[in-house]
Parts: sequence; structure tokens; C-alpha cells
Amino acid sequence: MPPTKNRQWLLAERPIDRPVKLTDFKLGESPIPEPKDGEFVIRVIYSSLAPVMRFYMLDGAGIEKPLEIGEVMRGRGVGQIVASRNSIFKEGEIVQGKMGWQEYAVSDGSPYWMMYKVHQRLVPVSTALGILGMTGFTAYFGLFDIGKPKPTDTVLVSGAAGGVGSSVAQLAKTVGCYVVGIAGSDEKCKLLTEKLGYDAAINYKTEDIPARMDALCPKGIDVFFDNVGGPILDAALARINKYARVVSCGGISQYIAGSNEPYPLKNAYKIGRLNALLQGFLIYDYEPRFAEAEVAMAQWVKEGKLTYQEDVLDGFERMPEALIRLYEGKNRGKQLVRVSKDPF
Amino acid sequence: MPPTKNRQWLLAERPIDRPVKLTDFKLGESPIPEPKDGEFVIRVIYSSLAPVMRFYMLDGAGIEKPLEIGEVMRGRGVGQIVASRNSIFKEGEIVQGKMGWQEYAVSDGSPYWMMYKVHQRLVPVSTALGILGMTGFTAYFGLFDIGKPKPTDTVLVSGAAGGVGSSVAQLAKTVGCYVVGIAGSDEKCKLLTEKLGYDAAINYKTEDIPARMDALCPKGIDVFFDNVGGPILDAALARINKYARVVSCGGISQYIAGSNEPYPLKNAYKIGRLNALLQGFLIYDYEPRFAEAEVAMAQWVKEGKLTYQEDVLDGFERMPEALIRLYEGKNRGKQLVRVSKDPF
Repeated sequence: MPPTKNRQWLLAERPIDRPVKLTDFKLGESPIPEPKDGEFVIRVIYSSLAPVMRFYMLDGAGIEKPLEIGEVMRGRGVGQIVASRNSIFKEGEIVQGKMGWQEYAVSDGSPYWMMYKVHQRLVPVSTALGILGMTGFTAYFGLFDIGKPKPTDTVLVSGAAGGVGSSVAQLAKTVGCYVVGIAGSDEKCKLLTEKLGYDAAINYKTEDIPARMDALCPKGIDVFFDNVGGPILDAALARINKYARVVSCGGISQYIAGSNEPYPLKNAYKIGRLNALLQGFLIYDYEPRFAEAEVAMAQWVKEGKLTYQEDVLDGFERMPEALIRLYEGKNRGKQLVRVSKDPF
Repeated sequence: MPPTKNRQWLLAERPIDRPVKLTDFKLGESPIPEPKDGEFVIRVIYSSLAPVMRFYMLDGAGIEKPLEIGEVMRGRGVGQIVASRNSIFKEGEIVQGKMGWQEYAVSDGSPYWMMYKVHQRLVPVSTALGILGMTGFTAYFGLFDIGKPKPTDTVLVSGAAGGVGSSVAQLAKTVGCYVVGIAGSDEKCKLLTEKLGYDAAINYKTEDIPARMDALCPKGIDVFFDNVGGPILDAALARINKYARVVSCGGISQYIAGSNEPYPLKNAYKIGRLNALLQGFLIYDYEPRFAEAEVAMAQWVKEGKLTYQEDVLDGFERMPEALIRLYEGKNRGKQLVRVSKDPF
């Protein structure tokens, strides 16, 4: 007998001035929705956990409305369309997007839902929440569209062990570049060179960053994929080559430590002087080309040229546990929950 | 009887620790050259004077070898090919390039000579040394290729009264943009709004730059064409819009006043944050497209949409006088000497 109930995790309490705990959530259920005209219903296969979720529970993180008490937790997932009255999203198709913490989601496919079809069937659909989703697309378009790497280029990556950074390195290796990564621990640096395809690594917490950049990038820097900003960006700018491309993908450290002042970049003038480029981008602007990135990267994943790490807990009931695990730093790779059986 | 002699201005003395004077030059002559295989001979029509020339007389300005005493002065010109044994540059064609201070120049057309054909015949060929030459091309490609202006954009220009800046404004007006210029005197600011098509002007020497930018760019800045760098660039970066394009075309003021330290840019991080772009460029990389810019701009000049100012002295013998005039600030617009009759 097919299921008739849609289990949902609801916000029970706000984690004000304290970590998230299991009792902040309450399991509820509702009937499995029927699609109205223009809508479609998705059976969620994997649900993704992200650090931003605590902020949704508190204040919406300045991006979205804060959740109400009793509201279904917000989150992205990948799933299969099980019923549709929408002309674009059809029954049987795989989609990723905002599905919430629930077994069945309903959407009209409008921009709010950020629903994107998953085209590839070479590798598990869970990848649509990471390496073949926004994380991988950010690496792909940032590197190839802005970074434009050539085989003889030196590519430097900050935030090198993260989801985006580790994908950038492997993508740059498909071109044949020499790739150096910057990360914050010896353990991560070891991971960079032993597992993630980096040719060399810099530990920014213990090493002299400019001196190590000089030593490891003797021919200068052609592409800098910057996930961090601040002093590391400035040190890299001091070492860029003519026509260098600096991909600005994040600015975690763009403020002076302990202040709200942005870090003043002494070497940004080199962009103009060296006919170089510094560019930011919004990954959603590349939506018309997501399928291109997905198909190219699925092939590389299949061939083992592009690896990724997932940490999957089994069972919808484990969603709160998975989120807490993330905050405790216990996850190894992208934290996911398998909500229902992967049909492929 | 056709001329048989080629008059030349030679370096007689180096202007060490003093201004350039007439006796630094000596008029010489040589036979009009005959082209060897692969060469062509140009009758110079206009010769261009530039501030860099004093450095050629002293130390080559770090760009080229210093001139020897007795050597023909270096400089660019526009002229007509009068004899050719070169398969690309043909008799009768108009070219601009390195011709030196002489009535006839010989070249093999190799990259050193920077010889570019002049295609347009709508407006005087003297324009090939300014508005339809590197100055205008810099404005054209910097604005259209990097700045990508849209009709509703606010375009801000520093070094606004200069050859490049004044062309940028008029080109931006062809698109329909709102254009604000920054210059260093009330006289120049008046010129900007009354003659050069600017909608508004900022005097950076007497006005509060950030406050004036706020007042004159109430919708923020979409394109900043930067001929200056330094604190003006930083103030503009603080006011850029999402997806803004900052064209880095010069950095006269990129150093902290009175020091060799580059000016630290507090707001360069906004490039990444706002999915914006900061880019430098080398105008010679656009060579394959020079003809496109020339033809488009010649039409605008013809239609009166693009104005330019030339200050032409008549007669080859006046070359030293013209250069000194430039250093004395007496020129109004591009300083040229008419070396021979314009055939058009």
C-alpha cells in the first residue's frame, strides 16, 4: 500500500544564545499533497544540511523570513516528481531545489523554489546537492568562465579544502594546470596534496603566507580562485602575472580581524597595471548553462577525475541529528540524509 | 622636381636637470630612403608630440633604449606610403606608427614599428594620432568591451578632461548613459559639462569627492572608467552597483601622496560582493579590431557626436617648438605638427 502520510520536521524552539539541540524540532505529519493546477509533487530522496539553518531558526539570516514556530524547517533536497500538473516539470523527472525537511514537497516551479532538473544518470542523484549542484557549479563556472585556465597556468586556491575549493583544484587539473591550495590545518593540507589533486599546499595558520607563495608559485599566479578575501587575497594580488584572472568567490576574511573595517588591499592596483581581471559572480546567473556543467562534471566523476565526499545518514527521522553533527564538526564531507530510496 | 632630401630632427643635447630647449635638437638631412625587399617608405603628413619624449632624450623612460646623440628623435606619425616592396603595406595607403621626427620614414612593418593602416576617409587623417588612434581606441574598447554600458547606466569617469576621458564621455552618451566626470579645475569642469557631453562634473581638488559622488550618482555607479586610481578609485568602489564594471585604464594617483606605497583600497572587496568586475587591458591586444573602432568613431566624428581638439603647428621645422609648447602647457588639445600636405 503506497504511503499516504508526509512526515515533516517542524521548528519547536529557537536556539537563542545556545547551540541547536534535538528538542528544537518536532516531528509532524500531513497528508501527501495533491498538485493543484501548475503544481507538482516531489518525493524527497536526499535532504541537505547547511550551517545557515540555525540562522533560519533564529532570524532568517537576513536572506529569508525567519521561520515561525511550528513551521516546516527550510532546506534543499533532491527528489523525484511523483505527480504533476505543471507543463515544465513532469512526472518521473529528478529535480533539486527548496524542498524543506519533509518526505514530500509541493512546488509550482516559480523562481522562489530554485528548482533545477537533474539531467545526468551516470552517478548518484545525491551529487545534485554538492559536486553536481551549486557547489560544483560555482567551482566550474568560476574557474572556466572567469578563471579561464590554460595548461601552463599556475592556479592558486584559497579555502582549498572546502567543497568549492576542492572541486576547483580537480577541475584545474583536468586542464593540466599547476595547482596550489591554501587551508587552515596540516591535516587539511595533507588532504589537499594526497586526495584532492593539489600539487602543493600552504597552511595559512602556521606558515609565512607570502614566503610560501613565492616558494610554491615561482612563475607567479595566473589564476587565483579566492574563497576568503582579506590579507590572503592581498598577498596573492602582489604575485599575479600579466593577464591574471582573480575569481572572487567569497570573502569570509575580508574584514580586519576584530573590526568591521574591510581589509585594505594594497595590491589591487596590480589588476589594472597588469591587464588583469578581478571578478565576482552570482552562480544563479549561470542557470541556462547548469546542464552543461552537470553533464561535463558527471563524466569526470564517473572517470574518477573528480572526487567528492558525502556523509549520509539513513532515515528521515535523523534530520535533527544530522544538523547537530554538522555544527559539531563530525561530518566528513557534505552532510546529507537519505529520506527515501534512491531509484537509480 | 620631386624632393630628394629627407629632413630629420636629431638629438643634439640631453636636457639633464633642466627643461627641453630648442638647442637640444639639430636639423639634419639624408637621402629619401629606397625600400629594400619587404620595406616601405612613408611620407609623413602629421607628427605627434608627447610628454614622454623628454624621457627618450634622457633615459628611454624605461620603455625603449635611450636615444644616442645624433640619432633621429623618436615619435609617432601618420603618413602615406610612397614606395613599397612589402606585400601587406601598399603604395598609396595611409598608415600610422613609429615614424620619428623626419619627413620620410622607412619600415618593414614588423611589430616594433606599430604600423596600423588608416581605413577611414571621412575625417582628416590627423585624427589617427588621437581620437581615431590609440587615445580613441582606448576609450572605445575600454568602455564598450569592458564597461559594457547600457542606456540606463550611470557612468563615472576620472581624468575626465583628458583625451581618453573626454572620448569616453561622448561614447557613453551615444548609448544614452548618464555621465559624470572628475577633473582637477573649475575650468576643466566647465569644459566637461559645456563641451564634452558630461551631465555633471566633480572638481577633485576643491570638492568633497565622496559627498559629490553621492549627490551626482544617486542611483550608484554602473561603470567607472578610471584613469587615475588611488583614493578616487576607492571612493567610486564604495558606490558601485551590483554587476558594476570598473575599467582600470590608468593609475597616476595610485600611490599614497609623498610615498612609494600603493594606496590601500578599502572597497575593492565590493567587486566580489556585488558580482562586479575590475579589469585592466592593453590597447594593442585589440589590434584585430582597430578598424571596427575607427570606422564607428569616424562616423560619430562626422555626425558631430564625437568631438576632439587638435593644436596643429604648420611646418616640419617647428617640431622642437611644438614639443616645448607641450611642456609649457600652451597646447589646447592634441599637439601635432603638419609635416607635409594632407592629400585628402
